[in-house]
Amino acid sequence: MVKITGYEIHDVRFPTSLTGDGTDAMNTECDYSSAYISFLTDSDLVGHGMTFTIGRGNDIVCIAIKEVANRLVGKETEELFANMGKTWDFMMADPQLRWIGPEKGVIHIASGAVNNALWDMYARSRSKPLWKLIEELVNSAAFRYISDAITKEEALATLKEKEAEKKEREEKVRELGYPAYVTSAGWLGYSDEKMKVGADQANDLRRGLIIRSIIDDPQHLPAGQAPRDLNSEALRGKNAGPTGAVLMIDANQVWDVQQAIDYVKGLEAIKPWFIEEPTAPDDILGHAAIRKGLKPYGIGVATGEHAHNRMVFKQLLQAEAIDVVQIDSCRLAGVSEVLSVLLMAAKFGVPVCPHAGGVGLCEYVIHLSLIDYIAVSGSMERNVLEFVDHLHEHFVTPCSINKNGRYNVPTNPNEGYSIEMHKASIAEFEWPHGSYWVGVKAKK
Amino acid sequence: MVKITGYEIHDVRFPTSLTGDGTDAMNTECDYSSAYISFLTDSDLVGHGMTFTIGRGNDIVCIAIKEVANRLVGKETEELFANMGKTWDFMMADPQLRWIGPEKGVIHIASGAVNNALWDMYARSRSKPLWKLIEELVNSAAFRYISDAITKEEALATLKEKEAEKKEREEKVRELGYPAYVTSAGWLGYSDEKMKVGADQANDLRRGLIIRSIIDDPQHLPAGQAPRDLNSEALRGKNAGPTGAVLMIDANQVWDVQQAIDYVKGLEAIKPWFIEEPTAPDDILGHAAIRKGLKPYGIGVATGEHAHNRMVFKQLLQAEAIDVVQIDSCRLAGVSEVLSVLLMAAKFGVPVCPHAGGVGLCEYVIHLSLIDYIAVSGSMERNVLEFVDHLHEHFVTPCSINKNGRYNVPTNPNEGYSIEMHKASIAEFEWPHGSYWVGVKAKK
Repeated sequence: MVKITGYEIHDVRFPTSLTGDGTDAMNTECDYSSAYISFLTDSDLVGHGMTFTIGRGNDIVCIAIKEVANRLVGKETEELFANMGKTWDFMMADPQLRWIGPEKGVIHIASGAVNNALWDMYARSRSKPLWKLIEELVNSAAFRYISDAITKEEALATLKEKEAEKKEREEKVRELGYPAYVTSAGWLGYSDEKMKVGADQANDLRRGLIIRSIIDDPQHLPAGQAPRDLNSEALRGKNAGPTGAVLMIDANQVWDVQQAIDYVKGLEAIKPWFIEEPTAPDDILGHAAIRKGLKPYGIGVATGEHAHNRMVFKQLLQAEAIDVVQIDSCRLAGVSEVLSVLLMAAKFGVPVCPHAGGVGLCEYVIHLSLIDYIAVSGSMERNVLEFVDHLHEHFVTPCSINKNGRYNVPTNPNEGYSIEMHKASIAEFEWPHGSYWVGVKAKK
Repeated sequence: MVKITGYEIHDVRFPTSLTGDGTDAMNTECDYSSAYISFLTDSDLVGHGMTFTIGRGNDIVCIAIKEVANRLVGKETEELFANMGKTWDFMMADPQLRWIGPEKGVIHIASGAVNNALWDMYARSRSKPLWKLIEELVNSAAFRYISDAITKEEALATLKEKEAEKKEREEKVRELGYPAYVTSAGWLGYSDEKMKVGADQANDLRRGLIIRSIIDDPQHLPAGQAPRDLNSEALRGKNAGPTGAVLMIDANQVWDVQQAIDYVKGLEAIKPWFIEEPTAPDDILGHAAIRKGLKPYGIGVATGEHAHNRMVFKQLLQAEAIDVVQIDSCRLAGVSEVLSVLLMAAKFGVPVCPHAGGVGLCEYVIHLSLIDYIAVSGSMERNVLEFVDHLHEHFVTPCSINKNGRYNVPTNPNEGYSIEMHKASIAEFEWPHGSYWVGVKAKK
């Protein structure tokens, strides 16, 4: 019997503000950061997890992680693994910590790091990469407050329905990889592209037309990368160009509701698949109004990177406010809450395209998209997964992309949730006493 | 020219868990706590503010307060006071801290403490209690993300419309006091009562009938307290009893949506004015469904104590999800965001009954209800303000109740937002090194 005996927490910050990586209309001066926890046990078993921030405040999240993790110290791991849904409920049920959420902000993303570390440990204990833990999904999800949208029984029926062809889908994705798109501005190596907008409409239109002309031209595909097949074009709607590629645009919450409609309909000419985060992430009815306002222009709406819990996603689906569900692997409180959202999205028939980039997010999300494809939605044709090619070198088992620009399937039996960071990276970038930050201070 | 030169922050926790004060179906083991900040300047001018928590995690909020307060150090106070709306926007605009919200949870309630401290300082600088700062309200409010519900011009029109009789209303409330109700279980000294429900339906019904029989009997009114007048009865709907008193019930988020409807309709016999917090505070559409489901039984819906920002209130109003808006003075990010909600509630014609109790909340909310009555909604007939009679002794200018069970109007020109805590109270209850907590540890 293995027991959790304690944990280590690290505040790790990478100096991305120096290069401008990840900067957008709302989130300037980013130092991509990880609030990182490793659970320790009285055996060799460990579990790593993290949540992502963009710098200042990462220390606040680390302190919150400690409070949440304290609830699990002393527990027997097999008891926790036996019903990960129940374990999630227990983790979330501290009444005093609940007050400073509830289920949102610092305490919720801290809960995400802790829950993810537990799932990592669970996967390691079974010598499987996390996505292979696809039995018993329904007992692993968080169901409180969403029974008006999906019951456990309905979730179970969805999973049963997908059961028959699971093996086939697993083989297919192992062979082909999982579809990816890139966001890094100006880096046009992939068929699908996402562009940041919101600062100047005329300039956005000009840039969009340039990107469009490139992704619509089969000559510009990277060597060896085939255009999307016709079936996939059909699935991706009329805004897929002649190569099957789509262009997405992302406003990072800069507008009020009417502003969003007025601005984005002016970008009709670049045929965006969707506008991402047009307004405040809490504004479900606002997203619904924007979607309705943009429908005549053939432009969809996506959000979720800042949607803070399953209740927000539930309402976005109920209100028909979005065309694409963009879950975040550690803004939601870990794998258990993500599973609830995957199940709801499948029931409502809305594709899931997780948010990634930052640090560690790409490592996480490939597991979630594999679970979605193999066991829940059964589809990867409409879906794409964000990919940004930086900071992967800090992970022991980094994600990777195949020659067709698709995510490879993680296969290492010891990689768990793929989020273990190199000890040397932690030592260098721990804030404020890691060697890198001490060096910066010395130079000042 | 006065400048902010720094601040002091205190983590103050009162051992209310020993007495069971404030315990309900969701929030057990409460130690009512204050994350408290005092701004210092290069003059005698100071500003005190706090946010409320129920214990564990109060330290996390204190660290977040520090991060937000840092933005204001070095600023000239008159520049900040000149446009408190713009100042609020500036306070909220740190991109890195925004990521760990945005506008929710720890970082948002910390922003509430900071904004309230600034408002306290503003009122002190004008030698007025805060509620008397009722000019320029429209420039003091937070308008981002709510222009689809109310524009600045509409808000201005509302305020102009109320202008003529402001003086008259001020005189009236100074004379009568502002209506209050109590929540402390079993303490039946007031005409209106609120009862906690959710653990057992039959028992709730039994207790409710007892309370109903008492508040409906004119004999049980405290000496000197008149029954509500007929006009007020009419305004309060058919669930006001023969004395004009109403009974409210509060579930503190324990149910899923359908559960809430099923449970509460079974309490029809006790004629509750409303059910408070029937489900997750983020569930706008859920509250709308519950309100629709309970309408045939004459029972309304209230929420807001955990509604985390103006966008949530905007949607609750747009979706016609609530009968009563229950703002919290420090879960919203301070006076500026509260003003936005007061303005929206007035436009939608929904009464505002602020959440109070805890520690410091009663001191705060009388100011907000006075602003609402005198300058915004113009009505205190439908409205009531929660009152709980404990922990007031820790404040320099505590709130008080008149012989008719109504809040007295704060009149001390030096009390600002009435939230200054006695230095001795801070020294005794500061956690973990105050004399009280050191004593507890020594006894263990």
